[in-house]
Amino acid sequence: MHSFALGVGTKDSSGNWLEVFFPEPQLNPEAGAIAPALEAIGYQGGNQVVELDAIQLEALGSSSYADASHQLLSTLKDSSRPLVAVILESDEKPTTVPEAYLKLHLLSHRLVKPHGINLDGLFAVLPNVVWTSQGAIAIDELVGRQLQARLNGETLDVQSVDKFPKMTNYVVPNGIRIADTSRVRLGAYVGEGTTVMHEGFINFNAGTLGTAMIEGRISAGVVVGNNSDLGGGCSIMGTLSGGGKEIISVGEDCLIGANAGIGFPLGDRCTIEAGLYVSAGSKVTVMDSELNQVDVVKARDLANKNDLLFLRNSTTGVVECRTNKSKVELNAELHSHN
Amino acid sequence: MHSFALGVGTKDSSGNWLEVFFPEPQLNPEAGAIAPALEAIGYQGGNQVVELDAIQLEALGSSSYADASHQLLSTLKDSSRPLVAVILESDEKPTTVPEAYLKLHLLSHRLVKPHGINLDGLFAVLPNVVWTSQGAIAIDELVGRQLQARLNGETLDVQSVDKFPKMTNYVVPNGIRIADTSRVRLGAYVGEGTTVMHEGFINFNAGTLGTAMIEGRISAGVVVGNNSDLGGGCSIMGTLSGGGKEIISVGEDCLIGANAGIGFPLGDRCTIEAGLYVSAGSKVTVMDSELNQVDVVKARDLANKNDLLFLRNSTTGVVECRTNKSKVELNAELHSHN
Amino acid sequence: MHSFALGVGTKDSSGNWLEVFFPEPQLNPEAGAIAPALEAIGYQGGNQVVELDAIQLEALGSSSYADASHQLLSTLKDSSRPLVAVILESDEKPTTVPEAYLKLHLLSHRLVKPHGINLDGLFAVLPNVVWTSQGAIAIDELVGRQLQARLNGETLDVQSVDKFPKMTNYVVPNGIRIADTSRVRLGAYVGEGTTVMHEGFINFNAGTLGTAMIEGRISAGVVVGNNSDLGGGCSIMGTLSGGGKEIISVGEDCLIGANAGIGFPLGDRCTIEAGLYVSAGSKVTVMDSELNQVDVVKARDLANKNDLLFLRNSTTGVVECRTNKSKVELNAELHSHN
Repeated sequence: MHSFALGVGTKDSSGNWLEVFFPEPQLNPEAGAIAPALEAIGYQGGNQVVELDAIQLEALGSSSYADASHQLLSTLKDSSRPLVAVILESDEKPTTVPEAYLKLHLLSHRLVKPHGINLDGLFAVLPNVVWTSQGAIAIDELVGRQLQARLNGETLDVQSVDKFPKMTNYVVPNGIRIADTSRVRLGAYVGEGTTVMHEGFINFNAGTLGTAMIEGRISAGVVVGNNSDLGGGCSIMGTLSGGGKEIISVGEDCLIGANAGIGFPLGDRCTIEAGLYVSAGSKVTVMDSELNQVDVVKARDLANKNDLLFLRNSTTGVVECRTNKSKVELNAELHSHN
Repeated sequence: MHSFALGVGTKDSSGNWLEVFFPEPQLNPEAGAIAPALEAIGYQGGNQVVELDAIQLEALGSSSYADASHQLLSTLKDSSRPLVAVILESDEKPTTVPEAYLKLHLLSHRLVKPHGINLDGLFAVLPNVVWTSQGAIAIDELVGRQLQARLNGETLDVQSVDKFPKMTNYVVPNGIRIADTSRVRLGAYVGEGTTVMHEGFINFNAGTLGTAMIEGRISAGVVVGNNSDLGGGCSIMGTLSGGGKEIISVGEDCLIGANAGIGFPLGDRCTIEAGLYVSAGSKVTVMDSELNQVDVVKARDLANKNDLLFLRNSTTGVVECRTNKSKVELNAELHSHN
Repeated sequence: MHSFALGVGTKDSSGNWLEVFFPEPQLNPEAGAIAPALEAIGYQGGNQVVELDAIQLEALGSSSYADASHQLLSTLKDSSRPLVAVILESDEKPTTVPEAYLKLHLLSHRLVKPHGINLDGLFAVLPNVVWTSQGAIAIDELVGRQLQARLNGETLDVQSVDKFPKMTNYVVPNGIRIADTSRVRLGAYVGEGTTVMHEGFINFNAGTLGTAMIEGRISAGVVVGNNSDLGGGCSIMGTLSGGGKEIISVGEDCLIGANAGIGFPLGDRCTIEAGLYVSAGSKVTVMDSELNQVDVVKARDLANKNDLLFLRNSTTGVVECRTNKSKVELNAELHSHN
């Protein structure tokens, strides 16, 4: 069994799912533990999305599954919102909204790492939703709701029009800070000890593996190693738009300076000087320890190599790669109090 | 007749308008269609802003105008908020808050293109407003409201202190995504098929004419052509502050790389390398197809020319202009599901 | 007496303070004016944080202190939230949440300038809080609240997970605009006449001393002089992470171009070209008025010098320092209507 979760969600007026919240998703649940739940639901095998009616919910509540999930089940039971169980026998590409949301939850709960779950076709499955102060609203129902809110003297704040909600309204993993939560999508993997400052950003299926200071942008698919520092406004090219085909990552103990950027994967203990953008195809002049020119290579040829310092020589304009002699030290005061 | 709209708004305690919401603004309305409405309102000619009382609203509701605008009128009728009709015979500079808001609505409803409507003196007309989870509040009434909210156990969230509200609380045009709506002002023109990511920004009287991926900043007055891609954190200089006098635009099929920027208008099929800022006065070395130096010109001399690639040679530091051999291809999967 | 304030705040379910709102903090209050309040509270000397019970509140309300603070006191009296008085005899490092919040309020009320108050150990004192549409919530109480909100059909929006709240929910000083308030932390000092655009950011213990256009990032500890312009996405290195040890400031009449950045303090009337990052250690070629090379120095050697223009020569790649012949002129129309 790949995964199992009970969720509560929102549908539009035609009965289409807009979003689902899974408070306690389970990866590789122990067969014995969820067997009573599966029986109560009437699970028949394969990957299934089951909308729960009162009878199934009653059966769940009186099964032995309720022993472990008492609070969740009793809360769901009293909900007037639509309930759903998702049972994934195997990790196929998602074909329904509840499946897609479960997979994004598994990432943000740190149960699977980026690239560790099948998200093929995700964009076609996820509906574009209006995220508001009154919850998820279907796009073609917005105008009526806005008028009604004005009539009622309410403020209907439209916060986002997007296929992905923000992560923190679904899960806030332990040991993190996120200064502006609108910049971290559900499906982000935010490592314990990570601080995402106001200018930081993390897309789905991307994130940090441990302690990190994130003031730059982590595009979809990008993974940042432990103890690395992404400076304000820095950019890591993604593979969805504008960038190349190569999946980019950042190793451990790296520093990408403010307003800098990379288009190729960094090894450990690498530094990119503030303001320097090194694309995969940038020609980089490699220097030896006496700062003599050794070679000129494309940046992608330096992919995943350790202990490199990239800078643009300010007296010549040449982009150089030197040996990085300093290791990043994150400010312990900032990170010891998450 | 230039434009006509019925709106519902917010006033401060002295009776000054703070904002107006026009659900169905009309550009160049057919004279016959709105004649009954104008009669009901008692319109006398010229540009008029008419606050509607119960008698006028009753007259509107029983006029033949109500046939076409039934839902709007019946909703407005039940509102306890101040109602207003704005009739603009001609496109003069706005002198009242309702006029200014109507013009911003016309832009965001895609009824007029950027630079297609008279906004002279806009900043002096628009009041600075506190935008909160309880709606628009006058600045000098905020402290009392904050104390009262605390007393009531409510959370009064102050989201913006600005002359412009965010667009999406007034209009969400079809076929778009905006990941963080706080970054698109009312008065933006967001073309069908445009995705504005978290780092994207669109000011008023500016926008995109069609499909676009916007992860950078479109300053006031800037227009971006169909099928162009603005990379994360890229900058297009505006004319309001810090920039020059020239109105800047971006053609079709262009790519401005992440953290790049321009201070001059781009033609079609142009690319700016990630991280490169080309101001209007930047000296650019023009290369032929064999990459021999042909000329050195100021970037503004290349304004609106097609098929150019701008990069800083990483082995010499020289900013070069070459012939752009690749055309931008937006990711169809991202854009076909708005 | 250093400072005095009455506040209302939020505690977690264990009775720990999460945040405190001080509507009218006083710096160096006149001894006679607050003596009746101190007596009513039972103040014994030193730095004290006193939670107020009904008896103390009654005594405050009937003291002559109530003459000057009538509205505040009568509002607080009816509150069901915990109330607190903070009396700081001297400016010691904060050791409690109410003390820390009072100091951040003093900065944002413009009663003390950045670096004008002792904030040592601030990070260890401030709890990491979940800031939501239902107010401040302790991190370990969030999941229960989220489930409960779903059950009630409410939308619990998690806006930030951080040690610092946004300034505007505590104080909006006069004469400012802040387009996206999530980007200005409590403890920021925002000068009268300052506009912070959507891409602007101001950390605590940092800010602007007067009129300014802020579209870039002011890191903790950084102060920007009157009439300066920070272009979109520009970066000023801080001392907390990724940067150096030197406290950085920007003088008067300066322009830091879009996507540019500095790692050393600027004097008055200095300009950094758009897109150029000058770190403290960057080697800068100094030019005379005929643009002949005079010297090569590190940028930090040019710290606080006036009338400098920094650019990267686009035909050579050399970072040059020239005499700045133009003075920044902020757009009067933008700034005269705050």
